[in-house]
Amino acid sequence: MTNYEFSNSVPKKVNDAIGEVFKAASDPEVISFAGGLPAPELFPVQEIKQATSDVFDQYGKEVLQYSGAIGYKGLREQIVDIMAERKVETNIDNIAITTGSQQSIDLTARMLINPNDVIFVEDPTYLSAIDVFKSYGAKIIGIPMDDDGIRIDVLREKMEKYPNGKMIYTIPNFQNPTGRTLSLERRKELVSLANEFGTHILEDDPYGAIRFSGEFLPSLKSFDTEERVIYLSSFSKILAPGLRMGWLVADSKFMDKFLLMKQSADLHTDNLTQYIISQFMKNNDIKQHIKLISEAYKNRADLMIKQIDKKFPEGVKHSNPEGGMFIWVELPGNIDSDELFKICIKNNVAFVSGSAFYPNKVTKGTFRMNFSNMSDEQIILGIDRMAKAIKEMM
Amino acid sequence: MTNYEFSNSVPKKVNDAIGEVFKAASDPEVISFAGGLPAPELFPVQEIKQATSDVFDQYGKEVLQYSGAIGYKGLREQIVDIMAERKVETNIDNIAITTGSQQSIDLTARMLINPNDVIFVEDPTYLSAIDVFKSYGAKIIGIPMDDDGIRIDVLREKMEKYPNGKMIYTIPNFQNPTGRTLSLERRKELVSLANEFGTHILEDDPYGAIRFSGEFLPSLKSFDTEERVIYLSSFSKILAPGLRMGWLVADSKFMDKFLLMKQSADLHTDNLTQYIISQFMKNNDIKQHIKLISEAYKNRADLMIKQIDKKFPEGVKHSNPEGGMFIWVELPGNIDSDELFKICIKNNVAFVSGSAFYPNKVTKGTFRMNFSNMSDEQIILGIDRMAKAIKEMM
Repeated sequence: MTNYEFSNSVPKKVNDAIGEVFKAASDPEVISFAGGLPAPELFPVQEIKQATSDVFDQYGKEVLQYSGAIGYKGLREQIVDIMAERKVETNIDNIAITTGSQQSIDLTARMLINPNDVIFVEDPTYLSAIDVFKSYGAKIIGIPMDDDGIRIDVLREKMEKYPNGKMIYTIPNFQNPTGRTLSLERRKELVSLANEFGTHILEDDPYGAIRFSGEFLPSLKSFDTEERVIYLSSFSKILAPGLRMGWLVADSKFMDKFLLMKQSADLHTDNLTQYIISQFMKNNDIKQHIKLISEAYKNRADLMIKQIDKKFPEGVKHSNPEGGMFIWVELPGNIDSDELFKICIKNNVAFVSGSAFYPNKVTKGTFRMNFSNMSDEQIILGIDRMAKAIKEMM
Repeated sequence: MTNYEFSNSVPKKVNDAIGEVFKAASDPEVISFAGGLPAPELFPVQEIKQATSDVFDQYGKEVLQYSGAIGYKGLREQIVDIMAERKVETNIDNIAITTGSQQSIDLTARMLINPNDVIFVEDPTYLSAIDVFKSYGAKIIGIPMDDDGIRIDVLREKMEKYPNGKMIYTIPNFQNPTGRTLSLERRKELVSLANEFGTHILEDDPYGAIRFSGEFLPSLKSFDTEERVIYLSSFSKILAPGLRMGWLVADSKFMDKFLLMKQSADLHTDNLTQYIISQFMKNNDIKQHIKLISEAYKNRADLMIKQIDKKFPEGVKHSNPEGGMFIWVELPGNIDSDELFKICIKNNVAFVSGSAFYPNKVTKGTFRMNFSNMSDEQIILGIDRMAKAIKEMM
């Protein structure tokens, strides 16, 4: 038998903790607040079916042939309008279609990170971004957050310590895993800081459109006067994640090279799917669909918070997301949420322990709860089960 | 304006020679033998439309949700059967679905190559594979070919010189760009050599199913007793490349890590498209479709060779492919095919100069001609134009 000599990009041990969580949570008996899955019952199946049929009738063989790395022009034109609603003026040449935001993160990281480069991230943050950055050999510096998002004072300190930091990775809206949103003032400060230190910002915005309370906040990209911000978004949360379709907005100097890397990675994104999404948005008002999702998620978030406040023991803290999919919970005392997970899974309820999301030092007793994927009944029952387990441990 | 500090993965200069070729060739006035595009008029548009409609009716929201990195089980089961026809016994756990073969090459390279690792390739070979290997810092050693494929004697010499070579990359069937096929004996020798030196083989087989003459030859993977061969194939040439769907066959030690990398790269391949291809193969006999394509391509290849023999000047050599999409042409004397391209494009006919395909030293006067994408009339007229240009240069 051969022994593969894997490259340094490959993790030495297959430590797929999160995979184990999802495996356990996939038991149909389990009420799962673990994943980051949209509500499947809200997928517009018939409308997407109709759009697909229209695409075959209207474009035929064109959608089955190879196409360009940058993506379908018709779709990029529609994304120009989506970006305008997000207060970012751009044009089709500065938009590239990707095979989901995960690919945008991976390729951007690959383009910017050399081994030992420093990347600043929110602490905690999206675990698959951490994995990507690590795979390219980055040194990851976690910056603590409060209710207004990443702490600019601490970020400045760390940037002074590592003045050659390559990139700041941030999820400004309804952050994964905390559900927190970066305040308007801090958005401006973050861009200023990037300008001052000559670093880049990777603005990951998969959830921003799903705002169900509070005020719209302009993206970091909208404050970017020096082309330092690379903006990522996706159709996964606003339409359907199975379609694997994201986009990236960046200036032309970045884009020229990005398209070479994109071509190396998978030539171009599935052409049929690009046309389907474009046609869906011609046939339907996606804003109406997003409104529908947002209202449903608001009800679920409100219910989950109500139940947490009512059932979890005193001293438990949680975030109050104004959108997105996640609530962040902090337990008092010394409760280990990895241990709590083990008890909960025996009682058929799942979440993701905070330990998965911290790039450096883990803050114990924290965990992420998803509210988008479970029904009201499941939310009520699941919180009851969790509350019982927490009380047992306290 | 910002100055990006790109990583070492990014080419210093944007030198997209091949992009320029395709740009020139995309003028509708130009008869293009440049690309590697299937014949779009043979795409089974109505059958794929029907399969899609069936998928929505039968599976609904399931195809729009996130799914696993390894890919749709139903499709992997069908690929087990496809592999059995190619004389490779495998099972669903050793098959991963990828976003096209380009992704399989990229991720496999990323998993195996550290900077300065040696990769052996056929000389000339698929240019986007060269680009991928270079982006990971590989040292690429081209091994000359003859009509029976890669020369094993030279490969052995080079492997003795570089005994720690990481991988042999080969396209055994109807190779890109030469159209040549590796003989049965050399297939066995190549696997023995890999065993002897403890190296891996990346067997890239996008064209193998499109055989229109000669005898079927078993894949390298079928001779692999030490799990050294990673086998890649794709639906791009046998069904439709716009769907971006490939697969990889490897043993479990490789697969465990591959799935982590796949997850980092794009979470999983477009779920809807996986179901569409699976449903297409349930509704239709894909072997019949492949037969149809192969017959059409045989006619075009025969015609192109007939015209080359008749119209090109004496002393011109060409390969005689038994399948696939490409013919390789070698001009006598000192003709520079980059220069020939310039004259040809002025006369509205295009091909790809050999210079794009050589990883090390370019053999002048060589070029690749694609026969799958043009009609009989275009083939006749295009060869006339090329013959005129070649005579001008001689």
